[in-house]
Amino acid sequence: MDHHPSDVIVAASDFPIVAMIGGGQLSRMTAQAAIGLGVGFRVLAATASESAAQVSRDVRLGSHDDPVALADLAVGAHVVTFDHEHVPQSVLAELVAGGAVVRPDPSALIYAQDKALMRARLSEAGIACPRWAIAATPDDVDSFAGGQWPVILKTSKGGYDGRGVWVIDSCDQATEVMSGQLSDGAVWLVEEKVAFVQELAAQVARSPSGQAVAYPVVRTVQTDGICTEVVAPAPGLSDEQATAAQEIALRIAGLLGVTGMLAVELFDTGDQILVNELAMRPHNSGHWSIDGAVTSQFENHLRAVLDLPLGSPRLRSRYAVMVNVIGGDVPDLYPAYKHLMARDPQLRVHVYGKAVRPGRKVGHVTVTGDDLADLLARAHHAADYLTGVIDE
Amino acid sequence: MDHHPSDVIVAASDFPIVAMIGGGQLSRMTAQAAIGLGVGFRVLAATASESAAQVSRDVRLGSHDDPVALADLAVGAHVVTFDHEHVPQSVLAELVAGGAVVRPDPSALIYAQDKALMRARLSEAGIACPRWAIAATPDDVDSFAGGQWPVILKTSKGGYDGRGVWVIDSCDQATEVMSGQLSDGAVWLVEEKVAFVQELAAQVARSPSGQAVAYPVVRTVQTDGICTEVVAPAPGLSDEQATAAQEIALRIAGLLGVTGMLAVELFDTGDQILVNELAMRPHNSGHWSIDGAVTSQFENHLRAVLDLPLGSPRLRSRYAVMVNVIGGDVPDLYPAYKHLMARDPQLRVHVYGKAVRPGRKVGHVTVTGDDLADLLARAHHAADYLTGVIDE
Repeated sequence: MDHHPSDVIVAASDFPIVAMIGGGQLSRMTAQAAIGLGVGFRVLAATASESAAQVSRDVRLGSHDDPVALADLAVGAHVVTFDHEHVPQSVLAELVAGGAVVRPDPSALIYAQDKALMRARLSEAGIACPRWAIAATPDDVDSFAGGQWPVILKTSKGGYDGRGVWVIDSCDQATEVMSGQLSDGAVWLVEEKVAFVQELAAQVARSPSGQAVAYPVVRTVQTDGICTEVVAPAPGLSDEQATAAQEIALRIAGLLGVTGMLAVELFDTGDQILVNELAMRPHNSGHWSIDGAVTSQFENHLRAVLDLPLGSPRLRSRYAVMVNVIGGDVPDLYPAYKHLMARDPQLRVHVYGKAVRPGRKVGHVTVTGDDLADLLARAHHAADYLTGVIDE
Repeated sequence: MDHHPSDVIVAASDFPIVAMIGGGQLSRMTAQAAIGLGVGFRVLAATASESAAQVSRDVRLGSHDDPVALADLAVGAHVVTFDHEHVPQSVLAELVAGGAVVRPDPSALIYAQDKALMRARLSEAGIACPRWAIAATPDDVDSFAGGQWPVILKTSKGGYDGRGVWVIDSCDQATEVMSGQLSDGAVWLVEEKVAFVQELAAQVARSPSGQAVAYPVVRTVQTDGICTEVVAPAPGLSDEQATAAQEIALRIAGLLGVTGMLAVELFDTGDQILVNELAMRPHNSGHWSIDGAVTSQFENHLRAVLDLPLGSPRLRSRYAVMVNVIGGDVPDLYPAYKHLMARDPQLRVHVYGKAVRPGRKVGHVTVTGDDLADLLARAHHAADYLTGVIDE
């Protein structure tokens, strides 16, 4: 574990300290929001070079599944929260038993950790999901498909950013995938492959006292399972559809007792809005809110877990477009970064301090304004230029 | 000096590190901007509890006038910059001689450190200032006044936030003030007391390659020598006057070779715009830009000192109003802070992590929108409530 001298001061004495498990970019952007709020921020990172560890005064080095590291993290912190879903429930139970205030509560978080539990709970509550079943064998997948391939096969636990999800075209392919090792406690889920018109995300912040605010519903584009583009608000969505999506997210937040940010990824089939995935933390679909909303998702996550009144989630312009910067073949971003800034002085560039690796999220860009086609073109150009996909 | 382990990593390897001398709130808000940009940030603070030291990974403890501390700060940093004007020129000369890149250059910074040099240089260049003279004796003040009291008496060096400035009504009063000790190398300046309609501030960012951007000209209100309210843009200012004020700031930046942010405090007499003071760093008159401009003054300061292309300084709404939170009799801000957030979800609250002392700047609030009277009322209410001036 890291050395953390007792003379580290991270906030005025009357302000609380939030400890976040995980040192990725979500944690980094939460650290940034904590500075403005004046609340203290402490991070548990695996290494000193992790994204959030680079920018936080109070960094503890350790593993998210080490009960000793977590207990240490919680000492003096008013609340413990997460930038990912990977802390095992047994470890969380120990943390809570030790007296830590954990938000979201493990009893809520479990529905973001286990897709089978989530599907069962939402279905029971009458919230529309894709048709789904638990599959013990490839034959179960075959009978679920009933000759209608492809279907989606998922592990109930341990997936992230497209890992743990397969598009399956045949029983043979199911056999091959299911020969892989499931993580501890995981099961196989089979789901219909939804023919969607677009993917949406609905984010809400909810506090322990039950206050909740809903962000504008956004359109997301996933590429190879990774979120690459977000438009706020989702263009072409009717007010009724947008309200329906927000109501789904608010209902899930209340039903599961979520505190902090909840992101609900949705399929819009044209006729119906179906729940795809849940995340109980700041989420890629809300990065636009730093530059595009009155209150960012990172600030509202902090406000929510501290049971502070929530900030306005409203858009500050007609549209905000966020495009992720995905690592390519060029290891150094800085030369391209200078050119981008010269080309578009309105561009908001966010860089996460991560070493570039192909397919890795290393930053994002946001532009705001009225002309959606122009915003999309500028944001994609910037992201592509930064990663070397294009060179002019 | 602080322990700073070599395993502290503050940015991706291809991104530069900016070192800032001074750990106050300007440095804190610059640290916040550095997170988004992905550039590294290192701070020299006097104590671990200083505002910026609470939120920075790489904190060096030491004094801003200690050449050893400054040399240490500069090792591995790509540029050294400032959150105040208090580093002596002799110490800066040593730092530059040691190979550090210092921005603004000491040859520019001296005009923000020494008001007599500044007045002489601007007057020589034909830039309108209040009538002024150097006064060696109270008799010099008396003859400058020529029976027209009051006049303003200032120390050329060492003043800050209203300290070092007196309104003088008589020769006897001048005698009393001038019996005080001048700081090293300082002289007495006497100036006319300008009958202004309003006070303005014009901020520009300028990079070493000569690119410059001008922020909207703002109206400032000073109370007891401390900036308490800023409205962007200055209401009632004609386009011609605003352009004239921006041109003054751009001209001064070019004339003096400023890099980074330059704030020019101005008197608007109705007929004329006169230069009051200069600051070569982020400035209180630009705090509105965090929530109100496309690119904040803190981000543009970093971009400028790194010779990165500058970001757009344009307003994101019709008006932005910033009101400083000045410490009162209530030591704990947090209880009031919760109520404020509940009352106004659009309010942007910035807290600096400083212990409350009467008269001390401990935070600021910003609101943006169309209705100036409403914005002013909300911002003042919030600031007054936070400090206990009002209780509902």
